[in-house]
Amino acid sequence: MMFEKLAIIGIGLIGSSIAHKVNAAKLAKETALYDASETVRARAKELGLGVVYDNYTHLLHGAELVIICTPSGVIATVAQEIMPYLDSGAILSDVGSVKGEIIKNIIPFLRDDIYFVPGHPLAGTEFSGPDAGFASLFENRWSIICPLDDERVDYKAAQEKLVEFWKALGANVEIMNAQRHDMVLAVTSHIPHLIAFTIVTTAEDIEHVTESEVVQYSASGFRDFTRIAASDPTMWRDVFLLNKDAILEILSRFSEDLTALKRAIRWDDGQLLFDTITRARRMRKEVIDAGQDINKPNFGR
Amino acid sequence: MMFEKLAIIGIGLIGSSIAHKVNAAKLAKETALYDASETVRARAKELGLGVVYDNYTHLLHGAELVIICTPSGVIATVAQEIMPYLDSGAILSDVGSVKGEIIKNIIPFLRDDIYFVPGHPLAGTEFSGPDAGFASLFENRWSIICPLDDERVDYKAAQEKLVEFWKALGANVEIMNAQRHDMVLAVTSHIPHLIAFTIVTTAEDIEHVTESEVVQYSASGFRDFTRIAASDPTMWRDVFLLNKDAILEILSRFSEDLTALKRAIRWDDGQLLFDTITRARRMRKEVIDAGQDINKPNFGR
Repeated sequence: MMFEKLAIIGIGLIGSSIAHKVNAAKLAKETALYDASETVRARAKELGLGVVYDNYTHLLHGAELVIICTPSGVIATVAQEIMPYLDSGAILSDVGSVKGEIIKNIIPFLRDDIYFVPGHPLAGTEFSGPDAGFASLFENRWSIICPLDDERVDYKAAQEKLVEFWKALGANVEIMNAQRHDMVLAVTSHIPHLIAFTIVTTAEDIEHVTESEVVQYSASGFRDFTRIAASDPTMWRDVFLLNKDAILEILSRFSEDLTALKRAIRWDDGQLLFDTITRARRMRKEVIDAGQDINKPNFGR
Repeated sequence: MMFEKLAIIGIGLIGSSIAHKVNAAKLAKETALYDASETVRARAKELGLGVVYDNYTHLLHGAELVIICTPSGVIATVAQEIMPYLDSGAILSDVGSVKGEIIKNIIPFLRDDIYFVPGHPLAGTEFSGPDAGFASLFENRWSIICPLDDERVDYKAAQEKLVEFWKALGANVEIMNAQRHDMVLAVTSHIPHLIAFTIVTTAEDIEHVTESEVVQYSASGFRDFTRIAASDPTMWRDVFLLNKDAILEILSRFSEDLTALKRAIRWDDGQLLFDTITRARRMRKEVIDAGQDINKPNFGR
């Protein structure tokens, strides 16, 4: 039992998965839940995810850890709303996919007696809502903690407690500063998703190729793009807008690199194409060597 | 037994897989093999893939079906080289990933008494070479046949025989004209691969993010790009150069679409982002409904 009372705000895929695991592993005496949607609150009750509240006063009274699990775009607003209701000494955290902008927006109204330790579990599926959660979602996934520049002993203790909590949820925890987090995630997650969303809609718009042909032959490569393009629209809209600077920077580089390859194709520069593909292939090997994927020879061409 | 003698030129992943299946299903009395590389020929012998020849005269004498399985870039050259040695009435085919340009390059020296029926099996793995082949590679994959405009009864018979052959290899066969094939494959395969190669190398070049960080957090989306970026450099260089027109056209559309999203991010147009992501998600559902992928909730975010 790590906490007497733990409060989760936003009962989607992440919020409900935390609740499942907290309940299964008995990490808190009470799992307190809130969602802005009445329908979602009713569903959370039916699913038996914890004690569902319909107001912040009762939800937050006595809560030692409060995790905001809403879409990234409203995390700062929710933090501002709940600030007056938090117990003195409470740990406040979030699960937003962007950290710098969220922290910047919360700092101005953060109370001195609240320990805000931002976090981001790198886990998800293509499903959303309270029914999508399951206890093992964080098993062996990375959870990144981006602590503030706060040298107080109590802050460090709160940070340590949050690290232990994520480990108890099954995650591997990494500490990183927010700027670095946002750049690393822009490269490994935000840009790949943005590109996947783009190519899928580009394909849909091409009038000499029917949608059914695209679907029929999707195993040739397109399928892998649809796989990462199948995520929650609200979540991703927020991520793109909040991590604007890093995304625009990397997108510019990507566009330059793509233009270079386009030019190589136009001018028959086979060597540049060959070298680029060879480099990409090497990176694949590193991903497999690092245990981040399996080497399964089973895809179309 | 469909053929007395079947000849395969180019003993890589595709050529050796055809040989495996032909031998296992006893589709030919003799599986005749040739590769330009002496090392590959020796290895094919060791693997017992068939009768390995070191010259075209003996390889092609009596061969009823000849399939060129070399990289796309040299298929037309090989076809020109072997033309004098082909038996009158032989069926000539290939497995190139681009059809229009290959056909255009072969037509000028095609003999009247040879039935050239181009083909393209949509199957592959990230491995190449004679050791990479296996009998079930084509099982339940699409194989596209792009017949010439040839109304002769014997040509139609040759085409039908090739269709039966690919079905015997386990594939689902589709007839399509070459121009359409090249456009459909540009959308479903060539552009996804080109973009995957690009983003993987872009990521490698970003100096504020280390390669090990990219690899460590690759499950967040990047991993799916490395998966399709792990293919043979020679094959893909050839595909990009041979299918230039379709690729450049679709790449231009993709760049425009990406620029529109980039602009939406810069100017906080959340609605455009939301609508685009929603469309992409719908396409994913169609891919799953068409049985082209499974709905497995198991990837990072």
